[in-house]
Amino acid sequence: MASVKVPALVPSPAEDAEQLRKAFQGWGTNEALIISILAHRNAAQRKIIRETYAQTYGEDLLKDLDKELSSDFERTVLLWVLDPAERDAFLANEATKRLTSNNWIVMEIACTRSSHDLFVVRQAYHARFKRSLEEDVAYHTSGDFRKLLVPLVTSFRYEGDEVNMTLAKSEAKILHEKISDKAFNDEEIIRILTTRSKSQINATLNHYNNAFGNAINKDLKTDPEDEYLKLLRATIKCLTCPEKYFEKVLRLAINKLGTDEWALTRVVTTRAEVDMQRIKEEYHRRNSVPLERAIDSDTSGDYEKMLLALIGHGDA
Amino acid sequence: MASVKVPALVPSPAEDAEQLRKAFQGWGTNEALIISILAHRNAAQRKIIRETYAQTYGEDLLKDLDKELSSDFERTVLLWVLDPAERDAFLANEATKRLTSNNWIVMEIACTRSSHDLFVVRQAYHARFKRSLEEDVAYHTSGDFRKLLVPLVTSFRYEGDEVNMTLAKSEAKILHEKISDKAFNDEEIIRILTTRSKSQINATLNHYNNAFGNAINKDLKTDPEDEYLKLLRATIKCLTCPEKYFEKVLRLAINKLGTDEWALTRVVTTRAEVDMQRIKEEYHRRNSVPLERAIDSDTSGDYEKMLLALIGHGDA
Repeated sequence: MASVKVPALVPSPAEDAEQLRKAFQGWGTNEALIISILAHRNAAQRKIIRETYAQTYGEDLLKDLDKELSSDFERTVLLWVLDPAERDAFLANEATKRLTSNNWIVMEIACTRSSHDLFVVRQAYHARFKRSLEEDVAYHTSGDFRKLLVPLVTSFRYEGDEVNMTLAKSEAKILHEKISDKAFNDEEIIRILTTRSKSQINATLNHYNNAFGNAINKDLKTDPEDEYLKLLRATIKCLTCPEKYFEKVLRLAINKLGTDEWALTRVVTTRAEVDMQRIKEEYHRRNSVPLERAIDSDTSGDYEKMLLALIGHGDA
Repeated sequence: MASVKVPALVPSPAEDAEQLRKAFQGWGTNEALIISILAHRNAAQRKIIRETYAQTYGEDLLKDLDKELSSDFERTVLLWVLDPAERDAFLANEATKRLTSNNWIVMEIACTRSSHDLFVVRQAYHARFKRSLEEDVAYHTSGDFRKLLVPLVTSFRYEGDEVNMTLAKSEAKILHEKISDKAFNDEEIIRILTTRSKSQINATLNHYNNAFGNAINKDLKTDPEDEYLKLLRATIKCLTCPEKYFEKVLRLAINKLGTDEWALTRVVTTRAEVDMQRIKEEYHRRNSVPLERAIDSDTSGDYEKMLLALIGHGDA
C-alpha cells in the first residue's frame, strides 16, 4: 500500500503549475510550497503537471527544479517528479556507471518491479540512453555478478498464482545439492531464480525449508563477507519478501555513521506509491521505532520534510 | 516485403466467415474456397474473421479447420490463421518440448523478430502456456546451448541506427581473441551477440572482417560438424542477414530427400507477411530456380496451392 497522501480536492494542473512557477520566483525559493504540491500528487498527476508546466512556460519543470534546489532535497524532488519507469531507468543507468556502480540497485529494480513494469523500464531505457538496459549491465559487470544480473534484468516472469508442486520439489532438491557442493554460481541456481515465477520460487523455497531444515538464505551464509553471496541472498529476499528487503536497506542507511542519503532517497521515492505502508510496519517491528521518528532524528530541513511527506506523515 | 496478395476489394468479415462455414459443410470440404479466402487476407483481417466466426457460429474457426483439414495442409492453414505472436509462441513452445525440440527455431524467433515483436511473443507465451518463454527454454536446454539461447529469447535490443565505432573496434578485437583461442562459448562472445543492437553488431562484424581478413562465420567453422558452432553461425546470420538465413532453411528443406515440410511451412507462414519477397530473390539467385518452381516440384495438392498462394504466386 502506498504512503503518499493526495488531498480529496486536488487543484487543477494549471493551478499547480502556476504555484510551482511562483515558488521559483522572487527572493529565494519557496521550498515549503514545492513540497506541499509535489509530495501530494500521484504519478499520473505529476506527469500532467510537468506537461502543463512545459506548455504554459515553455520550460522543463525538472530543469527549473534543478536550478532552484540543491543537494539531497533536490535529488529527492527530481527522482520523485520523474515518471516511475523513467526514474528506474535513470537509477539503473547510474548503477551501471563506473563511479556510481551498484549491483544491488540493478538487482532491486529487476526483482521488485512487476514483469510489466520492468519491461516499461527497459523501454524507457532505450528512449533515454539509446542503448538497452541489459547491454549496459552486461558491459559493466563480469563474472558471477554478470551471470546473475543479466538474466534478472531481462526476465519477464509469468505472474499467475499457479504452482507446480512436483517441480517445486525437484528444484528445491537441485538447489540443495548445488548449495551443499558450494556451487553457489551454478547455472541451475541462476536458472531457477531468474526464470521461474515468484509464486513458483516461493513454493520451491518453502519446500527447501521443510525438506532440508534451513531457510535457503541461512545455507547461503557460509561466508558472510562474500559479496556475491550477499547479492544472491538479497535477490531471494527481493523476490519473496520485498518489504523486508527494503526495511533492511532503510535500517542500514539510517544506522550508518553519516546517513546513506542516496539509499534513503531511493527507497522512499520508489516505494512511496507502492508498498511503503508495509515497509513502515516492518521497520517499526524490527527497530522498535517508527520510520518517521528515525528519519526525523537522522535528517533535517527541506529534505526531512519532503521524506516525511512522502512516507505519509501529516495531512495532505 | 510481404508476398501475400490481398485483393483490392475485400469481402466483409461476415461474408468471409460465411463462406468458410460453407466450405466445411456438405459432402467433403472445399479446400479451394478456404485457400482463396484465408491465403489472401492479412493478419488483422484474419483476426477479425476469427472473431466474427466465433460470434456468428459460436465455434472456434481454428477448431473447425482442425476438424476439416489434415496433414501438411492443415498445419499450414492453422499456423497461418494464428496471430503472428501466438504463432511464434506456439512454434517456440513446440521447439522446447522433448519430442519436437529444436534449438534453431528458438534462435530464429529470438533473432529475426523486432524487439517489440519478440516481447509480444513473450506476452502471448504467458497467456497461452502459463509460463514464461525463457523459463521453458532454460529448463529444456543445457550447457552452451542454454548459455546462448536464454539471453537471445530475453533480449530487448535497442533498435536505433546509432553505431559506436570505437566500441565496434574494441568488441571486434574481443571476438577475434576469443575465437583465436577457440573459446567459442566465452561469455564475452555471448554478451556481444545477445545484448548489442543489430546495427552495432553489424558494425562490429564489418570491422572484424576488415581488420582480421575473414568474415567471422568463416573463423567459426573450425569443426563443421559441431552443433553449437552451427547454431552460433546461424545466430550471426539471423542477426545480420535474415533473408539469407531463411533462403538456406528453404534450400535445405526442399533439397532434402523427402522434403522437410515443417521447415518449409514454418518459413512460408512466418515470413509471407514480412520479407518473403527478399527471400524469394535470394532463393532464385542461389539456386537458379524460382522458389515457386521448387515448391511446385516438391509438394502437391492443397498444401502446394496454399504455399504458392502465400508466397504470392498467381492473383489475389
